[in-house]
Amino acid sequence: MEHAKKWYQNPILLLLVLLLPTLASSQLKVDQDRLESRIFELAKFGLQANGETERVAYSDADIAARKWVISKMEALGLETTVDFAGNIIGTRKGSDPNLKPIAFGSHIDRVPNGGNYDGCVGSMAALEVIQTLNDHAMSTKHPLEVIIFSDEEGSLMGSRAMAGHLGPNALEVVNSTGYSAGEGVVRLGGDTTRIKEVARQKGDLTAFLELHIEQGGILEKEHIDIGVVEGIVGIRWWEVEFTGFANHAGTTPMNARQDALLAAAKFVVAVNEAANSFVGRQVATVGKIKAEPGAPNVIPGKVVTSLEIRDLSKEVIEKLYHLIKEKTEEIAQTSHVKIEFHRLDTTADPALTDLSIQKEIAKAAKAMGLATKQMPSGAGHDAQDMALIAPTGMIFVPSKGGISHSPKEFTSPEDMANGSNVLLQTILALDKDLN
Amino acid sequence: MEHAKKWYQNPILLLLVLLLPTLASSQLKVDQDRLESRIFELAKFGLQANGETERVAYSDADIAARKWVISKMEALGLETTVDFAGNIIGTRKGSDPNLKPIAFGSHIDRVPNGGNYDGCVGSMAALEVIQTLNDHAMSTKHPLEVIIFSDEEGSLMGSRAMAGHLGPNALEVVNSTGYSAGEGVVRLGGDTTRIKEVARQKGDLTAFLELHIEQGGILEKEHIDIGVVEGIVGIRWWEVEFTGFANHAGTTPMNARQDALLAAAKFVVAVNEAANSFVGRQVATVGKIKAEPGAPNVIPGKVVTSLEIRDLSKEVIEKLYHLIKEKTEEIAQTSHVKIEFHRLDTTADPALTDLSIQKEIAKAAKAMGLATKQMPSGAGHDAQDMALIAPTGMIFVPSKGGISHSPKEFTSPEDMANGSNVLLQTILALDKDLN
Repeated sequence: MEHAKKWYQNPILLLLVLLLPTLASSQLKVDQDRLESRIFELAKFGLQANGETERVAYSDADIAARKWVISKMEALGLETTVDFAGNIIGTRKGSDPNLKPIAFGSHIDRVPNGGNYDGCVGSMAALEVIQTLNDHAMSTKHPLEVIIFSDEEGSLMGSRAMAGHLGPNALEVVNSTGYSAGEGVVRLGGDTTRIKEVARQKGDLTAFLELHIEQGGILEKEHIDIGVVEGIVGIRWWEVEFTGFANHAGTTPMNARQDALLAAAKFVVAVNEAANSFVGRQVATVGKIKAEPGAPNVIPGKVVTSLEIRDLSKEVIEKLYHLIKEKTEEIAQTSHVKIEFHRLDTTADPALTDLSIQKEIAKAAKAMGLATKQMPSGAGHDAQDMALIAPTGMIFVPSKGGISHSPKEFTSPEDMANGSNVLLQTILALDKDLN
Repeated sequence: MEHAKKWYQNPILLLLVLLLPTLASSQLKVDQDRLESRIFELAKFGLQANGETERVAYSDADIAARKWVISKMEALGLETTVDFAGNIIGTRKGSDPNLKPIAFGSHIDRVPNGGNYDGCVGSMAALEVIQTLNDHAMSTKHPLEVIIFSDEEGSLMGSRAMAGHLGPNALEVVNSTGYSAGEGVVRLGGDTTRIKEVARQKGDLTAFLELHIEQGGILEKEHIDIGVVEGIVGIRWWEVEFTGFANHAGTTPMNARQDALLAAAKFVVAVNEAANSFVGRQVATVGKIKAEPGAPNVIPGKVVTSLEIRDLSKEVIEKLYHLIKEKTEEIAQTSHVKIEFHRLDTTADPALTDLSIQKEIAKAAKAMGLATKQMPSGAGHDAQDMALIAPTGMIFVPSKGGISHSPKEFTSPEDMANGSNVLLQTILALDKDLN
């Protein structure tokens, strides 16, 4: 009678056992219903009688929602603190004491009359990731850090402080609550006198990940489940001033006019044409216009407009600006109107995400059978600051009709769960790959 | 020895004597220096420490200036009254009791921070005409009526009341003095309860004449002394509403936008192109624009602009409006923006001057060696109301650079005297010709 083989001598069994942790982790799924019910619970904070939710950063509703989030984080066993900038940070220990944390999260503050999804999806997904790991008693080598950033909508307060690049007047800006950011940070439990201490250095985090709804409607339109964010676009702003000559609209013949509004109108059209004149995802917008004196019977003598250009590449922003400038010079000459560009300070450089993290996100999504698309984020996010100090990845899920910053915002529970699962799998992959 | 001929048997002497009155009247000239000094005297009423003059209708300065004018008129022997609408009316008797008056005049109220010429030139010229006739002891067959209209700048109050077409809410409009027109008329010595009684009927006046500065700079540019006004243009106003979709300027791709400001900009350009697309003196103006929400980082979802069209012909106004509408439909389709036109009530029909009076004005000017040009008045004037009830003529003199409604307004003493002399000669010609 042949001697019975040990189980590990059976190559199939051996393979199965060796692959078991991987199979187990790749089949790990967040609880979609629990995730959705948390989104609904969070939506109650700041809900008004008229159905709108007011939860602007630093408001009473913001503070109440944060307390609720902190209680949830503590219940998950996270060691939870509020840093000097008002960020909520919950840590789950890792098995290797030498490794730096993998951080992930988003924000729960909202624009006035905003929606229930926006930063809430990434915040609740972060809790869901922890709870799913807890439920399966899975540990990671790296510590995990859940970060709920303070005042994203107003000024990216929390993430800017963490990236160490708060502007000189950042604490003075007053939002719709009537509190300055400085007063607000104190209301959240921060300490403006020590806010600089929250800055992290490069190397302090192994990686940062953010899940967020996609605000352009591209994923929904193209039936794509997961957006793999290549970076957060850079933004430049100008004020453009048109100086003609105000004159009587009845007595001044058409050929004797120096109509500042006509020149500004040609400029608005030229901005659109320039942005559309070459292949790419650059956008240029004129959102603001003021004509003086602004009477129906006076030819406008002065017009001031805004100009905003966004792209993932500084060079493309420059190229588009120069195209617009060129067209503008022609307009100035033919309209006999002086046109001046004043560059404004409120600009942000493009922030690229980490290429290897992009690949991990795409790999995780594909393993789940989800369709992915590489795309820039046209909107600003906490991840753009975090990219300055850590290898950063960002995951988008569809938002119905691309609507955001509105009570009409909606992301399906399936899409939220897909995004959370991709977040979870990416964390696990990075935990495995990185040291 | 031949019998000496009687003087009237000498045909040359006879001709001279018969022509004497005509020669005398055609060489009659106003006193240029006196005219200019009256303009300067009148300019003192409302003069501020900063050099600007505030003499809006119904203000204390307006009332003081009117008192001064009344005293001058009385000194000239005019029978002077203030009618229920606040118009100052001074009458000089005519030799034929059966004839209706030839009226002439203008206004002395001013826009806020206006200039010294505007309606003051025609008002002081009217006094000068009377004084010149007095100085030469010349009588006319027709009674002469000098009219200084109340509140021209705000609402054409005096002339509208006289033409019997005051709007239903005309007395309620409040101007920059804080007085309603009703309160103002009472301040001037009028009586709002009896204001309808000032309305004249067709046939009550033989003619009405107004001298005014030309506010378009055309006479000055073309080196022409006298403008023979063909009529006062009609004015139509619309509010144009562009409804697109407000969206995030960062996340909404260029090809997914419904940019209300882009559509409005194309409209402003189209209005200009349409107005220039056929020969004529029509003008079209967009003077007012408002974009919502009006932030540099939001694609405007709604824009409202004004649209004004002026021309001497109703048909041309219609034609231009339809051209603009046609272009606008294209813009709406290609921009995916809804465009609606709302016609406003504040419109005036074209008011044509009397052809035979136009000829008399041109003839009088040419007899003095002055260059003339037939032209419409792009601005509104009291004459447009008077044209509804009397054969009306209007004389323009150059205004430097076409500037009006500004402290920079200037008309040379020579031009003022030329205009006054043409006014005088036209009055005398009409007095002779008309019954």
